[in-house]
Amino acid sequence: MINVRRFTAETTSHTFGGSEPIAELRSGDVLTIDTEDCFGGKVTGPGTLPSQVCDLNTVNPVTGPFWVHDAAPGDTLAIHIVAMRPSRDWAVSATFPNFGALTSSHATAMLHDPLPELVWRYELDQQAGTALFCSTDGTTRMPLPMAPMLGTIGVAPAGGQVISTLHQGEWGGNLDSPLIQAGSTVYLGVTAPGALFAIGDGHALQGEGEAGGVAVECAMTTTVAIEVIKAVPTPWPRVESASHLSVIGVARPLEDAYRIAHTSMTHWLRELTGMGLLDCAQLLAQAGRAPIGNVCDPGYTLAAQFPKQFLAAKAPAAYAGAHGRLATASLQHA
Amino acid sequence: MINVRRFTAETTSHTFGGSEPIAELRSGDVLTIDTEDCFGGKVTGPGTLPSQVCDLNTVNPVTGPFWVHDAAPGDTLAIHIVAMRPSRDWAVSATFPNFGALTSSHATAMLHDPLPELVWRYELDQQAGTALFCSTDGTTRMPLPMAPMLGTIGVAPAGGQVISTLHQGEWGGNLDSPLIQAGSTVYLGVTAPGALFAIGDGHALQGEGEAGGVAVECAMTTTVAIEVIKAVPTPWPRVESASHLSVIGVARPLEDAYRIAHTSMTHWLRELTGMGLLDCAQLLAQAGRAPIGNVCDPGYTLAAQFPKQFLAAKAPAAYAGAHGRLATASLQHA
Amino acid sequence: MINVRRFTAETTSHTFGGSEPIAELRSGDVLTIDTEDCFGGKVTGPGTLPSQVCDLNTVNPVTGPFWVHDAAPGDTLAIHIVAMRPSRDWAVSATFPNFGALTSSHATAMLHDPLPELVWRYELDQQAGTALFCSTDGTTRMPLPMAPMLGTIGVAPAGGQVISTLHQGEWGGNLDSPLIQAGSTVYLGVTAPGALFAIGDGHALQGEGEAGGVAVECAMTTTVAIEVIKAVPTPWPRVESASHLSVIGVARPLEDAYRIAHTSMTHWLRELTGMGLLDCAQLLAQAGRAPIGNVCDPGYTLAAQFPKQFLAAKAPAAYAGAHGRLATASLQHA
Amino acid sequence: MINVRRFTAETTSHTFGGSEPIAELRSGDVLTIDTEDCFGGKVTGPGTLPSQVCDLNTVNPVTGPFWVHDAAPGDTLAIHIVAMRPSRDWAVSATFPNFGALTSSHATAMLHDPLPELVWRYELDQQAGTALFCSTDGTTRMPLPMAPMLGTIGVAPAGGQVISTLHQGEWGGNLDSPLIQAGSTVYLGVTAPGALFAIGDGHALQGEGEAGGVAVECAMTTTVAIEVIKAVPTPWPRVESASHLSVIGVARPLEDAYRIAHTSMTHWLRELTGMGLLDCAQLLAQAGRAPIGNVCDPGYTLAAQFPKQFLAAKAPAAYAGAHGRLATASLQHA
Repeated sequence: MINVRRFTAETTSHTFGGSEPIAELRSGDVLTIDTEDCFGGKVTGPGTLPSQVCDLNTVNPVTGPFWVHDAAPGDTLAIHIVAMRPSRDWAVSATFPNFGALTSSHATAMLHDPLPELVWRYELDQQAGTALFCSTDGTTRMPLPMAPMLGTIGVAPAGGQVISTLHQGEWGGNLDSPLIQAGSTVYLGVTAPGALFAIGDGHALQGEGEAGGVAVECAMTTTVAIEVIKAVPTPWPRVESASHLSVIGVARPLEDAYRIAHTSMTHWLRELTGMGLLDCAQLLAQAGRAPIGNVCDPGYTLAAQFPKQFLAAKAPAAYAGAHGRLATASLQHA
Repeated sequence: MINVRRFTAETTSHTFGGSEPIAELRSGDVLTIDTEDCFGGKVTGPGTLPSQVCDLNTVNPVTGPFWVHDAAPGDTLAIHIVAMRPSRDWAVSATFPNFGALTSSHATAMLHDPLPELVWRYELDQQAGTALFCSTDGTTRMPLPMAPMLGTIGVAPAGGQVISTLHQGEWGGNLDSPLIQAGSTVYLGVTAPGALFAIGDGHALQGEGEAGGVAVECAMTTTVAIEVIKAVPTPWPRVESASHLSVIGVARPLEDAYRIAHTSMTHWLRELTGMGLLDCAQLLAQAGRAPIGNVCDPGYTLAAQFPKQFLAAKAPAAYAGAHGRLATASLQHA
Repeated sequence: MINVRRFTAETTSHTFGGSEPIAELRSGDVLTIDTEDCFGGKVTGPGTLPSQVCDLNTVNPVTGPFWVHDAAPGDTLAIHIVAMRPSRDWAVSATFPNFGALTSSHATAMLHDPLPELVWRYELDQQAGTALFCSTDGTTRMPLPMAPMLGTIGVAPAGGQVISTLHQGEWGGNLDSPLIQAGSTVYLGVTAPGALFAIGDGHALQGEGEAGGVAVECAMTTTVAIEVIKAVPTPWPRVESASHLSVIGVARPLEDAYRIAHTSMTHWLRELTGMGLLDCAQLLAQAGRAPIGNVCDPGYTLAAQFPKQFLAAKAPAAYAGAHGRLATASLQHA
Repeated sequence: MINVRRFTAETTSHTFGGSEPIAELRSGDVLTIDTEDCFGGKVTGPGTLPSQVCDLNTVNPVTGPFWVHDAAPGDTLAIHIVAMRPSRDWAVSATFPNFGALTSSHATAMLHDPLPELVWRYELDQQAGTALFCSTDGTTRMPLPMAPMLGTIGVAPAGGQVISTLHQGEWGGNLDSPLIQAGSTVYLGVTAPGALFAIGDGHALQGEGEAGGVAVECAMTTTVAIEVIKAVPTPWPRVESASHLSVIGVARPLEDAYRIAHTSMTHWLRELTGMGLLDCAQLLAQAGRAPIGNVCDPGYTLAAQFPKQFLAAKAPAAYAGAHGRLATASLQHA
């Protein structure tokens, strides 16, 4: 049986790139990683306002980075998420001044005063699988189904860059996409030796777009299995589940994230099907879905999602079957 | 039993507003409406290129408009879609020069030559519920599940305006949202006496965003039941299904469609729940979905979608229960 | 000497398209047109808030439309602005709830309350050529140089559409571009018989982008000379001055207005210079300017502006010299 | 007389942040800096295509960074541009595959093939002050007036980040704004000890928006005078000339760059005038200009520009008169 290594949330970074690796891994390794929530655990309820208890330079900590043996520029790192479980029995959400899709913000700068800063604490019931929404006046309580996901997953960016974990791009980062959940495999293009991946920003639940700027944020315990796919580059983050292939585009305005995701997926379908480019675009246009990740971060995220059932039976598996291989191999660790 | 009136696709309009009504209806009426496809039936396969056989001033015909007795500015018209069925056993899709999300276009104007113009013909199998994709070289054939929807549904726009059926806005129009399918109720704000609604642009199937600019276009036979809701305005198009409430935002860039939809839905939730505005925004941000309609038309469309299960049991039904009332009443016509 | 006809601001329309012409004109006619301000003259100072004294369906009146003999679809209407003069010795500006570039608005919809609604009254000194800014508390007074311009100028839109004068597009309309001033010639593509042009929305002064949503609005007396240019279509509004050629793009997001203007200008330069498309793009990219019109209306406007001095001496004059011809001919009326 | 130190283009960096300083400076220092062009001098004419002769990881070199004694987070670094002069008698421009405002690009990703890659060589005539445009077929030659500017000027970004010189943001970077020319003072907020500023990317000439993605690129010799302004933060890059104050916003979509610039300038005007926020917004909206920098880079740039003549005579000078002080002091070095 494969040894599952355990990493705690004490060894964190606040950038992708620029940090010393906390461990060296190899293809096939399975590891369990604890991550703190995006506030570093400092926001626990209405009495702890994020703008008062957090330092903006240290929000959104990630656990890592991990050096992956043999991962080199031009390769792809496959990170299969075996399992995710909130580490505590509570989570928080909040409004944060000048942050979110429906407020004056850093870039969509307006003359309004900020909206009021509020915190909501959610009790998590792992048995029932619910996060309990409670209105600020306490009169409305509504259990919402949990759907644990990782908001932040990435590798070192290209060109020796060091970029805050609040950002996102070709290297992944703060993608805030609900697609990144247990059972899915995330593919990231490696551009620095060792890949240097890290994860964090667990969400017990997040709506599409993360309209308020903050999801149901929680410390998370995540088990992942990794594999280096040699000499296959990945231009934008991709996700494979049992049923779907996805490409995540990162850009503003949101239609450019759509364009990146769908153009990149069209080229991927051409590789997999051998059909012409416009045939692939046609098939994607009719059978695809376009789930939104975030509409609040520096780069908005949106996925082009294609059902694997509409690939011909004879189509080669993506990344030579990495998803299936990792899913199967990690079954014994779930 | 209610009399179901039948209207053929011969009485069409190419604008919302500006056309004489073809019939007068009353609240509670159920009618079956035939609509031509967006090309007026002139594109039947690869030999009939849209730019050659269609006149741009007469594409996207709608059947109507219908005058609704007692519908007045400030009211809402509820249009419940009882049933939809493609009228023919085939449909078409195409690339159209300088139209679509992934090409130089009228507004996202670039120096490239247009992409090649191609037509795909889909055979529809009503028994199996499939539309057969066939690659241009004929070597790949893939049956896709049909999901019939109406691309275009609207009323006369405000201020006496007359606007092409290719456009969309507060009055509905060419929304191209897959939410508008059988079983759903569309709510449109009335701004002209008689509402003057019309429908058209059936799609046997459409992916989110309509990336190629053209869905699987087909003549459609649609049965609708209508009701006038007096003295309740509707600022942006809304859709109610058995499980969800949705508001459709229409704007460019796509994030503004997101903002319209989510701000408007937040206000709607406040009416329904009595919670504070930021509590409603919080609940929507965690439990909401944001399905995209189109990313190719003059106004992009995106819905804020909220599950009705997360409204308190005591919450009033939207529009005093119009959806349930119309769904039940129309059961005998399905 | 040519007869200068006079039209008062009493015969107005609130749409482009859909109104009966108030007069019939011919190529070569010179006419003086009075226009009311965008508020219909109802906002006269801080005591008259626009949202209280104006009906949104009748703001932004234009004087017209004018039927132009022999103007037919496919032609261009050249409107040379001979002279402009505010008709009164005052003007007003304001904030309007949920309107402007720096506030939550109809399309960029947010959860904020509207900004306060305020009115500024400007005294106009025609001798000095200034508009006097006065802060709301009266303590700061600053004379600003007047630069009279027409905010709204257009023809009937294509396809029988009838569109509010608050909108803008290929037909012109509420362009809100400071380029449209005395001495310039506006070229608009004719798509309806008679062209049906109208003008309004005079600004004594307007900054680039009209950030607050409202310029220094005034009743205006404008003298124009017109000419029909047969069989030359104009896809987007163009402006020619003594020194520059400009194309105005209309779109959201603002970069799409930039793309429209610059792509269209590149093609225009190809016609005028005979150089290759990428050579024209190169020349424009280095020698061009891109002055912004509005960043607040339904369609943002931005011009691609090219100095005529960088056209080869042998280049044909735009529109066969219409600008120079109209400027010369109208000298006697100035 | 102050000693003018000279730095050659041999000590370059390709990031802001992350590089060792090449020299230590003090407030009041005047220095002359040679910079290579954005291609590192490797593109010299049509025979040297950028995509073939350049390594994307080393394009856009900057000379620096410079450590400024006593510059600390929370301060502002004023960089006054005393003089600029192209270092060679030629410059180049080009199309670069999938880069520019009018082409499918990295973020505005489309299905088109790239536009052709071309290089234009401009002969620079320092006496005449012209750059000679020559069409690719050699038949059209047009001298354009030079207007030398620095495309790239910045300090180390916040939070220990290391970001490519192709990017831009609060730290400056690849702003590509024609405002940054001789006689202007650039103010940048310091977020890392020593500021670590660097400059590069000289343009002999650039149109607004840099539509083609590449300006008239040249090696440049620039003389600057610097001053640390203690305890005055600068949230976005600012530029002061003899006549204007400007704030440069950096964002996509372009309207967000407009919003940043104009909101930030409104707050700046409040500091300088003591008027209320909406009075400042009103004054800016009528008297402001909004010159565009680039519409091709990862972050589009646009300035809010306000004429100093419309500040009351009693208004305090920006940054306690740094611009005037530096301009006067550096006269002896020009």
